[in-house]
Amino acid sequence: MTTSPPIRRLWRDVTLFDGMDTLPEPMAVIVEGGRIVRVMPSARLADDEAANCTLQGTGGVLTPGLVDCHTHLVFGGSRADEFESRLEGASYEEIARRGGGILSTVHATRAASEEALFQAAKSRLEALMREGVTTVEIKSGYGLSVADELKMLRVARRLGEALPVRVVTTLLGAHALPPEFKDDSNGYIDLVCREMIPAAAEQRLADAVDVFCEKIAFSVAQCERVFEAAEAHGLPIKAHAEQLSNLGGSAMAARHGALSADHIEYLDEAGVAALREAGSVAVLLPGAFHTLRETQLPPIAALREAGVPMAIATDANPGSSPLFMPTLMLNFACTLFRLTPREALAGMTAHGARALGLHRQSLGRIAEGAPADLCLWDAKTPAELAYAVQPGRLRQRIYQGVLTHGQDQH
Amino acid sequence: MTTSPPIRRLWRDVTLFDGMDTLPEPMAVIVEGGRIVRVMPSARLADDEAANCTLQGTGGVLTPGLVDCHTHLVFGGSRADEFESRLEGASYEEIARRGGGILSTVHATRAASEEALFQAAKSRLEALMREGVTTVEIKSGYGLSVADELKMLRVARRLGEALPVRVVTTLLGAHALPPEFKDDSNGYIDLVCREMIPAAAEQRLADAVDVFCEKIAFSVAQCERVFEAAEAHGLPIKAHAEQLSNLGGSAMAARHGALSADHIEYLDEAGVAALREAGSVAVLLPGAFHTLRETQLPPIAALREAGVPMAIATDANPGSSPLFMPTLMLNFACTLFRLTPREALAGMTAHGARALGLHRQSLGRIAEGAPADLCLWDAKTPAELAYAVQPGRLRQRIYQGVLTHGQDQH
Ligand SMILES: [Zn+2]
Ligand SMILES: [Zn+2]
Repeated sequence: MTTSPPIRRLWRDVTLFDGMDTLPEPMAVIVEGGRIVRVMPSARLADDEAANCTLQGTGGVLTPGLVDCHTHLVFGGSRADEFESRLEGASYEEIARRGGGILSTVHATRAASEEALFQAAKSRLEALMREGVTTVEIKSGYGLSVADELKMLRVARRLGEALPVRVVTTLLGAHALPPEFKDDSNGYIDLVCREMIPAAAEQRLADAVDVFCEKIAFSVAQCERVFEAAEAHGLPIKAHAEQLSNLGGSAMAARHGALSADHIEYLDEAGVAALREAGSVAVLLPGAFHTLRETQLPPIAALREAGVPMAIATDANPGSSPLFMPTLMLNFACTLFRLTPREALAGMTAHGARALGLHRQSLGRIAEGAPADLCLWDAKTPAELAYAVQPGRLRQRIYQGVLTHGQDQH
Repeated sequence: MTTSPPIRRLWRDVTLFDGMDTLPEPMAVIVEGGRIVRVMPSARLADDEAANCTLQGTGGVLTPGLVDCHTHLVFGGSRADEFESRLEGASYEEIARRGGGILSTVHATRAASEEALFQAAKSRLEALMREGVTTVEIKSGYGLSVADELKMLRVARRLGEALPVRVVTTLLGAHALPPEFKDDSNGYIDLVCREMIPAAAEQRLADAVDVFCEKIAFSVAQCERVFEAAEAHGLPIKAHAEQLSNLGGSAMAARHGALSADHIEYLDEAGVAALREAGSVAVLLPGAFHTLRETQLPPIAALREAGVPMAIATDANPGSSPLFMPTLMLNFACTLFRLTPREALAGMTAHGARALGLHRQSLGRIAEGAPADLCLWDAKTPAELAYAVQPGRLRQRIYQGVLTHGQDQH
């Protein structure tokens, strides 16, 4: 029995965005066994080294696989009817009376079978993957009971097993107050802390715990209780904070070492300083900003000056961001939030990975030793990916060293 | 020799948006010889009629093929660098000094070979087609010399011959002042009227004539001269008007029986009345509104009240709308302009066709006798197409009765 040498795959003469910057000269990348093993200028690639490789691609722009670090991809039902009713002139009261809003998604999610939730989320996830996503975070938060939150997390885990994509799960039990706990939000927080988090931790269904810290959701004190329960179970934390008002949720989350504070349109200077000190990531969600026709911009200049890493995500969800297209967020980050294309791309690669705590494994980077999650794009420069909205430019998608979209070039 | 009966293709149990409205019950559509021959409720489809057909699709949402009635799809170069420079802080002066702005596209378009222009536009057009476009208007306007404008129009014509899509061409010689005519805009308008329009008409390269009526482009009086020349050559007219200020260009165009007035953010009540009287279409371009971060909304309520048909288009162009995705415009029309999903869809089907003068052939409609340009979408309701931005939902694209995207279902 002979052992054939391991396959080394080569991309050469590509314009390389490495997760942080665009390299100044045409580059070559070699992948073996699911890892990036060589990154160098094409001009320095020796003939014998190239001869040992299978040429997988030439030309175009090579980036790390995209990391969508904030989604609510698993949900039942659709809110298209509500979207339509509102545009046809129905008031918020009428829509609420008809059972619209987040609770309509809660009802539909509770009513849906695990299989139905899986199938619906699968087609949305495939849309993200066709536009370059190789790592996606998926939150619970429409179950709002122990059984239904765990059901959502199981669906998220199953998506990661069924499809060639890395799924990171987040328990967002403290997303909204379920009808059973109307007028007893502390009672619901008790349930989250005493039952939901322990169950999710024990069954290893959650990689992190999230909260929605807002007047219309949970107070800073309630969210802090959730974080303490998460810490007791060894789970990292993050927060939806400062989306609609400045309550100080981001600063509190930062004091607890949060991976990220997300939305943060209303974050103040003290909040920026808190994120900087904690090393937390600022996750910007321009899709919700667009859908809600928000006018308050997140404090981009202050975050930039403080050196707080800024991630960009789809926030894919049925209510405030039914936008299942990561590359659109690159454009939105630039056009709406005035990020540079470099910042936007880093926000969906290196900084997206950092928001999930995966930067320690060099995820979201093209570097020797990093996981071989790569996208080869039909573009001349990385900036084009943020400038033009044009689905279908993904020429190849490589997940853990394996081509999962597009064609071999050899 | 026996003649086999003509093939009749059947879609059944579809949710039908006919170009103007969504029908209340599941519908069946039969196509033969490139035309729609039957439209009826599925419940009324007789077994023997179904047995005479090849089943082509069931379920999902069936709409007319999308009509993108305003694009600048043929151009040389890219403005991604300029987009990036501006976000990195370069002033307009710096960008102009480096040769940015529309004239950079003019230089790149003049320098490009017909083949290079064709290849670049082809990939953009294919992106539109993957999201449902079966009819596209393409303007010249980056050549600004007789030879270069005709070159652009030839490329547009060739796109329609090479790909399964209906291309309608528009001569937009009066788009910007070329450097050779600096300080002599009347001299350039002479060239447009006396040489460009006659040449395009004689070579049958233009289906219509367009102008850019704005302080930074051409005056109402100059545009009127262009329209008179177009009329003398039997060409219909349209205008970019009231985009940045209210000059009265739309009303003047309407007096000349314009097919459409396009952009019209600054259109006043008199302008709305003029469009209504002329039967002109209001073409709304939310992509440019987004990219330019415009805040002045077009007068939607007044247009709606006056019954002026509103079309929606991508305005696909390298400067103010590098957005090559028709379904995104459905979302933008709703989210940014507050159109209903029904209005947005009519805007890219029946009213888009009207803006091109093609409504007389029932283009943009699903009706007996209409051309069989159809899209079958993975969606439960037509509203979902405007609500969710999710590339890849087009299950089948039928152009002139032929399946050109997706798979047979039988
Ligand atoms: Zn969220
Ligand atoms: Zn235009």
